[in-house]
Amino acid sequence: MAGEQRTAGAGLATLEDAARAATPSALEPREEIEREIRELLDRRAARAAAYGPTYAEVWEAASRCAQGGKLLRPRLLVDAFDALAAPQLRGSERRESALRIAAAIEILHFSFLLHDDVIDEDLLRRGTPNLIGELLRRQEAVDGDGQAPRGGAGGPLHWARSSGILVGDAMLSLVHQVFAREPLPEELRLRLLDLLDHTITESIVGECADVGLSDGIMPAELSAVLEMTRLKTATYTFELPLRAAAVLAGAVPRTETAIAAIARRFGVAFQLQDDLLSAFSSSDQHGKDPFSDFREGKETAIIAYARMTSAWPGIEPRFGAADFTDRDGAAIRAQLVACGAEEFIRSLVDEHLRAALELVSTTDGALPPALVDRLLRLVESLEKRRF
Amino acid sequence: MAGEQRTAGAGLATLEDAARAATPSALEPREEIEREIRELLDRRAARAAAYGPTYAEVWEAASRCAQGGKLLRPRLLVDAFDALAAPQLRGSERRESALRIAAAIEILHFSFLLHDDVIDEDLLRRGTPNLIGELLRRQEAVDGDGQAPRGGAGGPLHWARSSGILVGDAMLSLVHQVFAREPLPEELRLRLLDLLDHTITESIVGECADVGLSDGIMPAELSAVLEMTRLKTATYTFELPLRAAAVLAGAVPRTETAIAAIARRFGVAFQLQDDLLSAFSSSDQHGKDPFSDFREGKETAIIAYARMTSAWPGIEPRFGAADFTDRDGAAIRAQLVACGAEEFIRSLVDEHLRAALELVSTTDGALPPALVDRLLRLVESLEKRRF
Repeated sequence: MAGEQRTAGAGLATLEDAARAATPSALEPREEIEREIRELLDRRAARAAAYGPTYAEVWEAASRCAQGGKLLRPRLLVDAFDALAAPQLRGSERRESALRIAAAIEILHFSFLLHDDVIDEDLLRRGTPNLIGELLRRQEAVDGDGQAPRGGAGGPLHWARSSGILVGDAMLSLVHQVFAREPLPEELRLRLLDLLDHTITESIVGECADVGLSDGIMPAELSAVLEMTRLKTATYTFELPLRAAAVLAGAVPRTETAIAAIARRFGVAFQLQDDLLSAFSSSDQHGKDPFSDFREGKETAIIAYARMTSAWPGIEPRFGAADFTDRDGAAIRAQLVACGAEEFIRSLVDEHLRAALELVSTTDGALPPALVDRLLRLVESLEKRRF
Repeated sequence: MAGEQRTAGAGLATLEDAARAATPSALEPREEIEREIRELLDRRAARAAAYGPTYAEVWEAASRCAQGGKLLRPRLLVDAFDALAAPQLRGSERRESALRIAAAIEILHFSFLLHDDVIDEDLLRRGTPNLIGELLRRQEAVDGDGQAPRGGAGGPLHWARSSGILVGDAMLSLVHQVFAREPLPEELRLRLLDLLDHTITESIVGECADVGLSDGIMPAELSAVLEMTRLKTATYTFELPLRAAAVLAGAVPRTETAIAAIARRFGVAFQLQDDLLSAFSSSDQHGKDPFSDFREGKETAIIAYARMTSAWPGIEPRFGAADFTDRDGAAIRAQLVACGAEEFIRSLVDEHLRAALELVSTTDGALPPALVDRLLRLVESLEKRRF
């Protein structure tokens, strides 16, 4: 199987060099992925336009938002594919498939974000209006006063949120269409469909748990919060792209299993780092409102730990309070440091990254050197993320 | 092609007889469809249970709601398949595929209803709690006072609505998995995927227009409302099952095209009848709150017509009013009759049914007699629907 073979690029200085050497295209993987995403969305834009200006405008706004990401997930897929695939697969039709599946994974991410934003009632993403915020802004500009001109319960905000739900559905369907149609050998196509199914199930269960924890439906124990973290983020952010790369490269199931275990470690570390960034760094760094997690009463692992300490009675009254102020935010932040919650979560991040490192080094034989190299770099870049 | 052949059942008294004669199973199509739906949902229930009691309970409640429908769409598919398929396809693996696709279409309907209910903020469907209402009821029973026990913006209603969004996503994904995996010849599988894609796009555009019209984003002209009606309901309720039956039966594209044109006529007639039922019959008959369409300011074709008459200034002030009463409802109903809106929409329904009838009788050769028979019965049953 291709996944077991040594790749020609293993001796090159960086994975990017290896990918470049192997790729007939003059484009960088990033540009290739951007082109695929644009093509997928543009083809639909032409169709949307046939249904009149309102839907065409919604699709155009959505399409623009969908293309603003850092492409973490699709780049991970393409990098891993280039590292895993046998030389004859790199630069082949199979690589075109990898690019399309990578683009679809970015669209899946966007569709999750859209429904998350509806659920969290967010209007911003990384400091700029998300699709809902953008549709709201456009409609208020048209209406002048921000009021619906006619009867009915709705108005611009209802319109914008409803469109967020519907465009999320359209994007989710698009992802499935790409996976379902990819001209791959039947066995690989079914493995990818299984993987997509597993990923979507876990992401939905994770988001459901996130809502359930924050709304007080489920008891916010540390173990439940950590499991939610794994389900909601780790599966689709790391496990999906890395396993999809393995399937597309024709890796044997043993390789795919080894990669999945490593990916889960990365995923939990990454999400815990996000929680730390949200809680302890400035909004310049994370692009959200300052203290938004504390304001919303979000049940992160940091909070779940603090809950078990004697600091909690001092934090609880202001956590998620209706009249929350930035002063409350600064006070909670200081208490979370003092009670050891910050340190505990940092040590958990270390633990997961160390475990990932160990898995990378001990699964010898199952992973080709180029992929080992790529994964070690990933550990390194995640370690540097700790600001 | 099978779709062009005369079927053995054409001389039998009813389509049901024909189907029974051709089916090796001892079950009625209705029971066969129910069994397929149950199997699809149960397989997922086992998986949901692995993620703990909260999600397991959400899935169990969703599964129960999904199984409460009249099965209009899947029965249409299976009936049409039995009428269209050559004898060797009836009772074959192909018929098993038709049953699974039929079950998936019912799940698609449920997923649309879930997101519609979130958008419309409905807690009831046909007079009983929908999934959101059911989750809310269960949570309030647990909480006692209906208040979230902890901080955060949410509470039982936020939890129930968010679950509605997420379960809708899970169901939409499930539908795609069924279509993507069905072991059919490649060409048929792709035709079905195209049809699913077309259907979902039109349904989303239609729902988006429905929201846009009600929220005052789009001008509520009669033509726009009629187009919304076709997109939102006709495509997935009639075009999808009838065309899917044609594809599964191996009908030539000409037959599929003829069926699609007839289906669109049925679909618009059916939705206009629904609007008439909602507006002019008692809640015993339609299972919704009395006058809910007037209360919500819903932009139906009835209202779009009334808007063009001198009666409108008398209707407008109470239509969708925040303090709407049943007395307002009765008054609006009387005004809609007096201004001719009711009569106009009834004549539109007649027009669409007559056009469907004409298409059925003039597309000779393209439709096998058993299907012609089935479609004529459908016209008849839709004509009887006019209470």
